[in-house]
Amino acid sequence: MRPFKLASRDFYPADTIISLKAGEKTVHIGEGYCTVIAGPCAVEDREAYLQLALLLKKAGVQILRGGLFKPRTSPYSFQGLGLEGLDIMMEARSITGMPIITEIMDARDLDFLYDKIDILQVGSRNMQNYTLLDELGKIDKPVMLKRGFSATIEEWLLAAEYILNGGNRNIILCERGIRTFETYTRNTVDLGAVALIKQLSHLPVIVDPSHATGKWKLVTPVARGAIAVGADGIMVEVHQDPDRALSDGKQSLTPERFELLYEQIKGLARLADKTIE
Amino acid sequence: MRPFKLASRDFYPADTIISLKAGEKTVHIGEGYCTVIAGPCAVEDREAYLQLALLLKKAGVQILRGGLFKPRTSPYSFQGLGLEGLDIMMEARSITGMPIITEIMDARDLDFLYDKIDILQVGSRNMQNYTLLDELGKIDKPVMLKRGFSATIEEWLLAAEYILNGGNRNIILCERGIRTFETYTRNTVDLGAVALIKQLSHLPVIVDPSHATGKWKLVTPVARGAIAVGADGIMVEVHQDPDRALSDGKQSLTPERFELLYEQIKGLARLADKTIE
Amino acid sequence: MRPFKLASRDFYPADTIISLKAGEKTVHIGEGYCTVIAGPCAVEDREAYLQLALLLKKAGVQILRGGLFKPRTSPYSFQGLGLEGLDIMMEARSITGMPIITEIMDARDLDFLYDKIDILQVGSRNMQNYTLLDELGKIDKPVMLKRGFSATIEEWLLAAEYILNGGNRNIILCERGIRTFETYTRNTVDLGAVALIKQLSHLPVIVDPSHATGKWKLVTPVARGAIAVGADGIMVEVHQDPDRALSDGKQSLTPERFELLYEQIKGLARLADKTIE
Amino acid sequence: MRPFKLASRDFYPADTIISLKAGEKTVHIGEGYCTVIAGPCAVEDREAYLQLALLLKKAGVQILRGGLFKPRTSPYSFQGLGLEGLDIMMEARSITGMPIITEIMDARDLDFLYDKIDILQVGSRNMQNYTLLDELGKIDKPVMLKRGFSATIEEWLLAAEYILNGGNRNIILCERGIRTFETYTRNTVDLGAVALIKQLSHLPVIVDPSHATGKWKLVTPVARGAIAVGADGIMVEVHQDPDRALSDGKQSLTPERFELLYEQIKGLARLADKTIE
Repeated sequence: MRPFKLASRDFYPADTIISLKAGEKTVHIGEGYCTVIAGPCAVEDREAYLQLALLLKKAGVQILRGGLFKPRTSPYSFQGLGLEGLDIMMEARSITGMPIITEIMDARDLDFLYDKIDILQVGSRNMQNYTLLDELGKIDKPVMLKRGFSATIEEWLLAAEYILNGGNRNIILCERGIRTFETYTRNTVDLGAVALIKQLSHLPVIVDPSHATGKWKLVTPVARGAIAVGADGIMVEVHQDPDRALSDGKQSLTPERFELLYEQIKGLARLADKTIE
Repeated sequence: MRPFKLASRDFYPADTIISLKAGEKTVHIGEGYCTVIAGPCAVEDREAYLQLALLLKKAGVQILRGGLFKPRTSPYSFQGLGLEGLDIMMEARSITGMPIITEIMDARDLDFLYDKIDILQVGSRNMQNYTLLDELGKIDKPVMLKRGFSATIEEWLLAAEYILNGGNRNIILCERGIRTFETYTRNTVDLGAVALIKQLSHLPVIVDPSHATGKWKLVTPVARGAIAVGADGIMVEVHQDPDRALSDGKQSLTPERFELLYEQIKGLARLADKTIE
Repeated sequence: MRPFKLASRDFYPADTIISLKAGEKTVHIGEGYCTVIAGPCAVEDREAYLQLALLLKKAGVQILRGGLFKPRTSPYSFQGLGLEGLDIMMEARSITGMPIITEIMDARDLDFLYDKIDILQVGSRNMQNYTLLDELGKIDKPVMLKRGFSATIEEWLLAAEYILNGGNRNIILCERGIRTFETYTRNTVDLGAVALIKQLSHLPVIVDPSHATGKWKLVTPVARGAIAVGADGIMVEVHQDPDRALSDGKQSLTPERFELLYEQIKGLARLADKTIE
Repeated sequence: MRPFKLASRDFYPADTIISLKAGEKTVHIGEGYCTVIAGPCAVEDREAYLQLALLLKKAGVQILRGGLFKPRTSPYSFQGLGLEGLDIMMEARSITGMPIITEIMDARDLDFLYDKIDILQVGSRNMQNYTLLDELGKIDKPVMLKRGFSATIEEWLLAAEYILNGGNRNIILCERGIRTFETYTRNTVDLGAVALIKQLSHLPVIVDPSHATGKWKLVTPVARGAIAVGADGIMVEVHQDPDRALSDGKQSLTPERFELLYEQIKGLARLADKTIE
């Protein structure tokens, strides 16, 4: 028997659908929907971010992403704009009506971020940061739980179990590639895990093809594969000028390329009878 | 610069398309086509095999698979029917008109198999069996080169390079999952590698969702993901009675479930403008 | 060029030696010394812990370990005694004179633990918890930084770099096994990494053969291998009654077996001209 | 229960010791002995090889290695001298009295090599080449079975089981590093596996620190670790001029460095009560 309970479909047979107010309409994440989240890796500049937000809104994006505190492997890399970026993200929300998602890296930031951000993201490196998971279990906000880059499916669902056990059922799982021996891609995207989790669990699962591959040329095909395999959506990095991005430029699409991706995703969503709003 | 040459699209920009006579028509494998290969893991019984071959033909399958010599991890497991099975496969071809594919495990079998089998498969464990690759480079028969279960993309293309360097350009690459830390699935299917190889190389790439996942419940979603990501086809294990299969029963579809898979694959092939014959 | 600076031997050619007052004498960790840290995985019971501490002291152990907050994969597993255990550890220190080490899981606990614990351990799952690393960089206490179970050597040294960059040079690296495809052992101990880090960095490196193997029968041979390869010490789990341990019993040595291990380690330390105090 | 039988200590409780005539004396491989095998990766030049063989003999080496057919990842790399090299190796044996070991890559070479070579090596890429294993099971010559670079301990022992099941009990296992996510070392040497196999199986286990690390600076510490952990010997690449070696120069020791390694190994063998002849 599997060691997780609340995350299991045996416990909750019905699919968990997360609903977010987005201006006048509502965005859904879960079975039957195809939700597209997009934005730059990090918020770098107010004007550029607002302009991009408008472009993405027009292209059909439902949720806007942006990084404030960047967990970087080296202490000498760009660490994010921090709170300054938060105001920019909130401004983008009020202009476009799109809910916003950003990463929370420390339980101490929760009070501050709680009523400003629509979805709190737990990054791959923090998937087993149990004190953070415990705090997120006590709130009612949606949490996007990225898979640890070397976490098994079981460990991932057990991390969700920590949050569920605290009382918060609004969890979105996000596959972002795992670490293997392969070096031509940044990570190895595990689309088989997506198919399996859709069977084992009631929680929504989305795929981040940008981190999963680390190469913009692979983002669109892997995004297609994700939807075809049964994912409930994708989260994609977009940047107006990827070559000058302060982080993750190599895996970012330009807005033009993103539009082409979106068209293909729409076709696949329709074929799979998924609503793409 | 990449260390492979003949396998690279820089060397041969045009897609390699492999054509096989199949009764009165021709089967193609390569860009623009969606080729479906199916059959049981091992040929076990004449009557059952012929019956299955007819069912698969009717379902739309283009190429028939069957294992004669099974490379098994334990010497105490079923090792295949050997040459006895070859006659059964040839009979199935003459009844259905489908080309047949089987694994070659030893260069010494080449003379014997050469004019009886339409595609010679190099299994995952033999991907770096260079004496076998050298021999296959000297013939003109199509070779399906499965990725070693721990081979990098580079090593895989260099294994193809051995065959190409010998003079044989009729190579089909087959992704069948790689070994990672994950244990819920038998292997981790690397669909990002499929997308990347379609960009790096002119060779056709297909996906084996049966070995890649080890679970029949995941075969159909992963097959869908493969086509959506850009694979040129799939190879699927089908068995009339998976519970009694002498090998790989857990990952085999029943003919009924295979028909459902085929319908979904057809939809995806059309969406991607791929011919499925 | 390597991306780490302060952790590199090019920057600080001399070995970093960490010194701790231990009652009337001083314990050293670093090149030329062989330091043995031992204790139970978790502090479970006052009397048992104090008794074990005395046994270990007598056996030659220099530093006493004990877990207070256990980071467990499942929320339903024993989570540690928490602060109640801290008093027990401090009592053991005052009885035996041994410095004590325990894991810190949350930056919020730092104020509280700072003057009660001699070495603060960062666990494998928190190796890239950058907000925690930042806080530990601001203090002057020794920090034991365990390798993330899927961290590369480079990422591990960059995590140390975060602490060094904050101003704290008292870092002990601890190899505790990495995650691979192998399942017969809990992790794969990477003794090659120990040898390499001793060349790349001036920081002390010790090995935890208990977590690295997950099997008590392997603890002693792997501990020997660690010292022979050049590690500056070992950290070993010991429990009076491993079958009843609330966590990690399978990898815990009894005190009797630990004594045998200690004898062998002494022999190897002498052969390598390492002081074992 | 474990799936292997003949390889298990439950089946044969006594240690398997392999004895080889070496001129006037006998070389043993197995529990209680520390056997040192050394030589260049590939036989490249008669004079250099004979000179090196004499140096190694003098340094204490018991068995001489040399590669004739090199399994190279790229078809454009040096492939070995082939049969020409065999005469050179036989000449080195007659001059030094040392038994010789080389890799067999194809079952078709067995008749030819059988009475010329003292130990036949199965390389990492061929560990699951079952037609080769079957042939080696039919002979009485010692076989060194290197671990596949991604083989589990179970698969490795099952590969040995193929040979044992054919009737040949003269098997030496050789750990040569496994493939992981780490890139600072060529492979990750799995010394925990060595300790475990010594408990599970009666077969001798040696370690190849050269392939395991890919860096000559790590060869000596890892060789020490291997003996301390319980390995029955080591196999080391030595070359007079590593910078000009046609293969594996980066991981080859000079004869001078090898002498220092040998001294350290002798100390460890004595400490562990192993005979080093």
